[in-house]
Parts: sequence; C-alpha cells; structure tokens
Amino acid sequence: MSAEVSRRAFLTGIGAVGVAGVAAGIAGCTDHSASGSRSGGDAAAGDNSTVPFRGDHQAGIVTPAQDRLAFAAFDITSSARADLLAMLTTWTAAAEAMTQGDQVPGGASDLAAPPADTGEAVGLPASALTITIGFGPSLFDDRFGLASRRPTALEKLPALPGDRLQPELSDGDLCIQACANDPQVAFHAVRNLARLARGTAVMRWSQLGFGRTSSTGAEQATPRNLMGFKDGTRNIKSDEKDVLDQHVWVGDETDQPWMKGGSYLVSRRIRMLIEAWDRDYLADQQNVFGRFKTSGAPLTGSTEFDTPDFTKADAGKQVIPADAHIRLASHENNDGLRLLRRGYSYTDGIDPVTGELDAGLFFIVFQKNAHTHFVPLQRKLGTQDALNEYIKHTSSALFACPPGLRPGQSWADQLTA
Amino acid sequence: MSAEVSRRAFLTGIGAVGVAGVAAGIAGCTDHSASGSRSGGDAAAGDNSTVPFRGDHQAGIVTPAQDRLAFAAFDITSSARADLLAMLTTWTAAAEAMTQGDQVPGGASDLAAPPADTGEAVGLPASALTITIGFGPSLFDDRFGLASRRPTALEKLPALPGDRLQPELSDGDLCIQACANDPQVAFHAVRNLARLARGTAVMRWSQLGFGRTSSTGAEQATPRNLMGFKDGTRNIKSDEKDVLDQHVWVGDETDQPWMKGGSYLVSRRIRMLIEAWDRDYLADQQNVFGRFKTSGAPLTGSTEFDTPDFTKADAGKQVIPADAHIRLASHENNDGLRLLRRGYSYTDGIDPVTGELDAGLFFIVFQKNAHTHFVPLQRKLGTQDALNEYIKHTSSALFACPPGLRPGQSWADQLTA
Repeated sequence: MSAEVSRRAFLTGIGAVGVAGVAAGIAGCTDHSASGSRSGGDAAAGDNSTVPFRGDHQAGIVTPAQDRLAFAAFDITSSARADLLAMLTTWTAAAEAMTQGDQVPGGASDLAAPPADTGEAVGLPASALTITIGFGPSLFDDRFGLASRRPTALEKLPALPGDRLQPELSDGDLCIQACANDPQVAFHAVRNLARLARGTAVMRWSQLGFGRTSSTGAEQATPRNLMGFKDGTRNIKSDEKDVLDQHVWVGDETDQPWMKGGSYLVSRRIRMLIEAWDRDYLADQQNVFGRFKTSGAPLTGSTEFDTPDFTKADAGKQVIPADAHIRLASHENNDGLRLLRRGYSYTDGIDPVTGELDAGLFFIVFQKNAHTHFVPLQRKLGTQDALNEYIKHTSSALFACPPGLRPGQSWADQLTA
Repeated sequence: MSAEVSRRAFLTGIGAVGVAGVAAGIAGCTDHSASGSRSGGDAAAGDNSTVPFRGDHQAGIVTPAQDRLAFAAFDITSSARADLLAMLTTWTAAAEAMTQGDQVPGGASDLAAPPADTGEAVGLPASALTITIGFGPSLFDDRFGLASRRPTALEKLPALPGDRLQPELSDGDLCIQACANDPQVAFHAVRNLARLARGTAVMRWSQLGFGRTSSTGAEQATPRNLMGFKDGTRNIKSDEKDVLDQHVWVGDETDQPWMKGGSYLVSRRIRMLIEAWDRDYLADQQNVFGRFKTSGAPLTGSTEFDTPDFTKADAGKQVIPADAHIRLASHENNDGLRLLRRGYSYTDGIDPVTGELDAGLFFIVFQKNAHTHFVPLQRKLGTQDALNEYIKHTSSALFACPPGLRPGQSWADQLTA
C-alpha cells in the first residue's frame, strides 16, 4: 500500500458497500511503524459514496443535504498574498483527497514529523463528504491585491430586522462548509484545513449542525426543525435546472467573470427560543408556520406537498394567517423569488445568561445575489413573520462561492487568474 | 390511529426495517387538525431497533455505545419533595415511551394546549435510544428528606490532578444520559425531559457527543478519538458477566440496598489541546498512547487486539514507555482494576480566550464505586500519564445510577421505597 493511505482502501478491500454493508475487522494487518510504513486499520460499515470534487459548480450547493455539517469561517492573519495563495493551493489538494475518502496527502509515514493527516477519519468511508469554499467581502480589501476582483454583489449585508448578531460569530475572510453523512468525517475535514492554514489563517468561528435521520436513502423524508415542523418542503430541487440558473447560479449579469457558475452563500444562525415555543398551543404553533405540525401539510391542504391556497378563507378569516411564515416566505408572494436553502439544526448547550437552551437552525441559503434575494425577503420576514416572536438571528455572514474547479485548477488559480 | 401517536407506526406501516430500509413518503395521510385528530407523517429510513427500558439494570450502561450522545445535568429548583417525585414519575413514563419510539404521552391532539411532545422526532425511528438516570450527591442533602438514603459511595469526587474544572459545567442534582443512533432522537429525549421538569428542575449543563461512524452493524470497529487513535480497544465487553459483576454493578457491599444492581457514573469532559497535539511528531504521538496510530496495535504487537507486552525492551529501552497511557491505564498495572468506559467525542466550537478548538472527549465511566475505581486511577494518570501534556479535564460529575426498573415501577418509587 502506498505511503498516502486511502481511507477507502480499507473498505473496498473487504467488500463493504453502501449503507447496508457490515464490515468485519481485518485480521493480520501490518503496522510496524518502526520501519516507516503506514498501513492497516479496520473498516466500519457506513456510507461509501463519494461526490465529485470538480465540475461546473462546487459540490455542496445543490448536492442533496448530507446528514451533518461542520462549518467554519476563517480570518487571514498573514498580510502576504503569497501565503494566502499557497494556503488555497494546499487546501485544494487536501479537500480533493478528503472528499474522495483519502487522507490529507504528504509525509504520512514520517515518524519524525507530525502526521500529514490527523487520523481520526482513518477507516471511515467518504460518507458523501463535500467541501465548499467561500470568500468573504473582507478578503477583497487592500491586503492581498484583490480589490479589483471583488464582485459588486459581494458587499457586506446591511443591518436587517431581527438581527441580534454576535460579531465574533459573524463574517470572516473565508468559509468552509463541510457536509457529510458522518460527523467525524465532516469535522475531520474542517480541522485538517484549519491545521494546514497555520501561520496564514485562523478559525474565526465555527458551527456544527445536524439535519436529518441517519438514513442515506435517496428518497429522504423532509427533516423536521427543532420546533417540530417539517422544514424544506418547498425548497428548490437539484433537478430544477431552470430555477437554479435563474436564482442560484451566477450568470452573465456578474461584473466579475470568475464568479460565473458560482453562487452567494448567506449563513444565519437562527436561535430558537425553545422554551417559549414549547409552551405555545398547538393551534398557535400551526398558525405561525401555516402548516399542520405532524403531517407538514399546509393548513389549506391534507398532505405535505399540497400547494398552499393563500386565498382560502373560512368564515371570513384567512385559513393561512396573514403573518404565517409559509405565506410570507412563499415565492407566490415574493415576485417569484426562490432561494436554495440548506438548513441544519444546532444545539450548543445552555445560554449562560438565561439558562435556556441555545439551539435552533443554522440556515444556509444560496442565490445568485444575496442583495436581490435574501435581503428583501429577510426585510419582510424580519418585520412581519409571526415566527419572530420565537427566534433571533445571532450570526450572519456572506461569502462568494466560486464555480467548480476544472481539472488541475486550484482555488488560488481561480481567485487570481 | 390513537391520539397518542406512535412514531414507530409511521415506519412499521410501510415496512421499513433495519438499517437497509429505504422508505418512501406516505401519500394521502390525513391531518385535518381542525377536527382535533393528529396523525400522518412520513417515514425515514433509519435504525428501527429498540432497547428494552426495564430490566435488572438500566439500559445505556452495558448497551453497546450508540452513535450519538445527549447528556444533561439538572438542578432541582423546587424545595418540595412531592414536586421531585412527581417529576420522576412523569419522566419515567416519558422516557419509557420515547425509548420505544413513541411520543411523550398525553394530550397530543389538543389544539388549545401545548403539544405533549415537541415533535421533532416524529417520523424518526427509535434509533436504539436509551435513557439512563443518575442521582448526584447533592440530591441527598436535607431538601427532600433523602439524606438517610444516600449511599456512602455517593460522595463528591475529591480534587484530582489534571482538574481544570469549570463549576458551571460540573456536578448537578440529577443527570440524564440519552444515547441513540440519531442525534435528533437523542436531543429530543433530553429536551422533552427538561420541558417536563419545568417548575421543578432546570438544566444545569449539557453536552452533545458523537462517537462512531454512521454504521449500526453489530461488529463495529473501535472508534477513533479526536487525536486520531483508536479508543476503547480494551474496554469491558457486554458479555463479560463476571467482570461486570466484579467491577461495574453495585453488589451486596452497598450500604443502600436500593442501589444494588446499579452503578456509579463519572463524567469527565476532557478537552484535547488539539493544535499542540497536531504539531507533535508521529513517533511521539505513538509513544504517548503506546499504540500505533493507524492500526491501533500496541507498540509491542501488530494487530489491534494483541495484548500489550509491558516487559518488552529494545536496546535496553521499554518499547511501551513508562509514561505511555496504555501502560498506566492497563488493568495489569492497576491490581486488576477495570472500568466500563463510554466515551464520546465532542466539538464545541472555538475557545473565545485562546482561539483554539474546544474539542475532545466526553468520557463516561461506570463502576461499582468511583472512589475505589476511577479516583485512584485518575490520581495515577493525572500525575504520570504522557497524555497530560495534551489534555485538561474541564468538567466532572458523579451520579448514582439506580438499577433497572421492574414492571410498573417508577424512578420515584425506586428512590423512596
């Protein structure tokens, strides 16, 4: 086995395939590290699927949401452009390897050096890992000679109604979104990129999320958020190419051609005031969303995917209330506006000030321009939505996600070429 | 369908079974909540297995570690014994229902009341959920008339070497350990118990953990900790009955017969100094543990489950160093002492003081007496272990976990009868 050990090799070698594969330990693997070789290890059953790293668009945007999220924002601490570009080159190689189920490349067998890979994902399958990069507005200030490359659309978000932002959990020069069906694989990716950034960038904030059941079936049910409601029923589907071109992918309208085929990522950490919500009556909860809690059907329908009837009234009263979330957020009531959402639940222990749970939704949204998509929608929701009584936005960030990489291209090439 | 909706009914009704089951959405479910009925919902593929709630011992102790942990410590805020006992009775019924894949019982269909269950686990399978309760030393002070019921062994742990404890993350009157193969199911359990405690108890601290791959196969590989090393190779196995009776289950030696068949839980939040560790040479890392990193084999062996040879020397030097973790922690070098470990990795973002990752191991250990088992071992490890350079213990707690419940018995009965 080569010095750069494939994580997948542990699995394919014993024929574990797909979610149903149950692997037995490998007997007799050799690991006589005194001789410098590094191999062996066990296999675990799990999700062997891989997502291509290169292509027209970055993976992790229309890729069906994997079960777990590890998200991190970074600040560049070096003022040297060369350091930034070297880091982006290193990151590209590492990210590509990890998404394919391999270890971070380089020097794995050298006893007299730190391991190139931190090792906690050895033996774990690729788990559909995707690693998506984004560039924040601040990266295009005067530090790295990138000012002329800044897209007009990459302007810091304005203050928005509902904002209760913690600056230390917001913004950043760069972001990495790692999604996988195994939390250890997702965390491993972010941690190793952070490690490779040493001396050039530091992690500014990070967020873990979970979004679904442990299933990896193609026909997943819509997951529930921590308010107990189905979330994502009306999201854009990955095969709606026209909608994606119209609303998600940057097109010819951009003033920076390098961003064509990319997308803008807005992240919002939406804390739910869980205790207050849990004391609310079922009828009120349903009116806040405009959906039935258990089935997820709109209040005017009987099954989840029924189209809401926003005109329907009962005894002179709108069945879906005027301030219901589903009404205010719908494309029917927003000039056809669509956003690609990728939400993950989070639970971060207890708020030390209030003693209440710090839990909610880490909401990621992709669109071709946040200032024409997310901003007007949030201006409306932030003032009118009945949900506001039960949520507050504690973190916000905007990042430009470049298009996918061509063969041989790195994120450094992409940013500068 | 009855008013108390079974989560499992959604699954069994469509024949989803086991890890390989991939479920399709249910078309045509009814959820006309205006009439007060509550039913419907979708199914998701996942882990349909259930663990019995009642028995000689509590579940979640020798139960093979599920993938995810949600742990919470509570303080009783009421001074009325009746409130405490009422809460424990309510908790018992809720815990039993949830572990069987059902919702929290009571009033689920009442529109003019908060839902009895918060709902985010509707449609998710039981996922092998176990809910384990523990009573802290402080519960047996003079508030609830329980002082005479306190086992001698339930005495707060002494200060220990390596302690860098945060009091707000330590101790507590009660604890709940919820383990499941789905994080949303585990969190749902703790959250609903917290909600049912309102007016009687508040959550003091909580911890999420993840420990393995997303596999649920019986022959799981040993998981790796966030240092990249296999952790748990030499743990007690659930079928080692004699070892469990000798070291884990409380026996006739107790001065409180109600604890017979129970166990003492010690929780330690062990933060890893990840950045320092990641810069350490591979050879040093392996010497710290006394194992090869990739294979997990002891430095004197070639496969993971080889018995370490603590006498082996090479050119006059011990192959497994004197301060290696594996040597100091081994039962061979601790008068045969064994502890049942249940460790979960945690990652809690970034330390706001240092900017480094706040990540590590949430270490749970069960034994018949923490003062004869965990305390002497930690006294030794905390002073001699090479690992100390890379870890610090930030949270500590001790809880008495009573034995399993008999049919019809509640945790309130058990504590007082």
